[in-house]
Amino acid sequence: MTTLPEHFARPHLVDIVVWEGVELLDVAGPAEVFATARSGGVPAFRVRLVTTGAPTVTTQAGVVLQAAGRLGDEAPFLLVVPGGASERAVEDEALLAAIRDAADRAEIVYSVCTGALVLARAGLLAGVPRATTWHGALERLRAEAPHLEVVGDRRWVDHGHLVTSAGVSAGIDGALHLVGRLLGGEARLAVARHMEYADGAPPGHERA
Amino acid sequence: MTTLPEHFARPHLVDIVVWEGVELLDVAGPAEVFATARSGGVPAFRVRLVTTGAPTVTTQAGVVLQAAGRLGDEAPFLLVVPGGASERAVEDEALLAAIRDAADRAEIVYSVCTGALVLARAGLLAGVPRATTWHGALERLRAEAPHLEVVGDRRWVDHGHLVTSAGVSAGIDGALHLVGRLLGGEARLAVARHMEYADGAPPGHERA
Repeated sequence: MTTLPEHFARPHLVDIVVWEGVELLDVAGPAEVFATARSGGVPAFRVRLVTTGAPTVTTQAGVVLQAAGRLGDEAPFLLVVPGGASERAVEDEALLAAIRDAADRAEIVYSVCTGALVLARAGLLAGVPRATTWHGALERLRAEAPHLEVVGDRRWVDHGHLVTSAGVSAGIDGALHLVGRLLGGEARLAVARHMEYADGAPPGHERA
Repeated sequence: MTTLPEHFARPHLVDIVVWEGVELLDVAGPAEVFATARSGGVPAFRVRLVTTGAPTVTTQAGVVLQAAGRLGDEAPFLLVVPGGASERAVEDEALLAAIRDAADRAEIVYSVCTGALVLARAGLLAGVPRATTWHGALERLRAEAPHLEVVGDRRWVDHGHLVTSAGVSAGIDGALHLVGRLLGGEARLAVARHMEYADGAPPGHERA
């Protein structure tokens, strides 16, 4: 059994913020990973979807998700910002303000895919030197945050409080990395095995 | 541009049946793949979640999904049967009957993870020689369908009308395979690239 940091004696809140047109797998990959992770034989995380708007959202895949709360009604330990319809999300001032506030109260902020563009617009990437995003949005992220070194050959980039992953399926890899960082390699491996997924190793696909 | 079979001139219905406790990624992986696939520049599939019970279901990850229809209200081109809480699903006679009926009307039936146990209990694996499932359920599937060769070293097994995949993340691989079979390798590769996922190659994780 993995020895746990004391603060994992109870499940920690993972809030995944969703909006109309969010990318389904950006949400579901991390949700699956964090919900599967156990510490001391019990779930390490409690995963919720949260919104700032209507409680149900239709993902780009057409699958409808129902949020369990509103962003900001609790302070999340880990705030996940997925991608999808990011061109609309970056214009939604109420969403950006709520993300800024929740990020301030969260131990870790984790963007998946074009969620990095949302973090950039919210001003949350100002303090980090390096980030990644979906391969189709690398140039957009460079334009959005000129100080950033935007890397296109990493599944995830970890700067402690701020973690960014590459596109869609890479959200699984970054989440597995976070499980390893927070709970140890044995916990990470247990999740990867349950999911029959490579243990955080990049799939063979070459980034464009 | 990929040359299309004539019957893909309009989006084909993919129904993913869900129930209380269904495994989130078993649903979201194939949903993402099929919703992303395009033929002739337009979406090749229309993806719906369907139930036989209440219209909202809570997945094992805690994420709540809202179904768009009832299993059987339309004849799906492709019926996806995910896993999760399969011990309850195999005892649900109404669910099994609806799956049998929809499978009969579907061009392809695709189980992910322990969904193979549900297909077996519904009598739908009687006509195939070989199948796979989640690594933790291989013995249960052998007990459920003694005639089957249950393989534990394949991401998916394709018998035409009946396709089974291994656990959780392998649902993505089987779905990518089906996109390739139905729409060609170029379409499959486009989806894998969009998702930044290996092109149907098994991740490095060794099956237990």
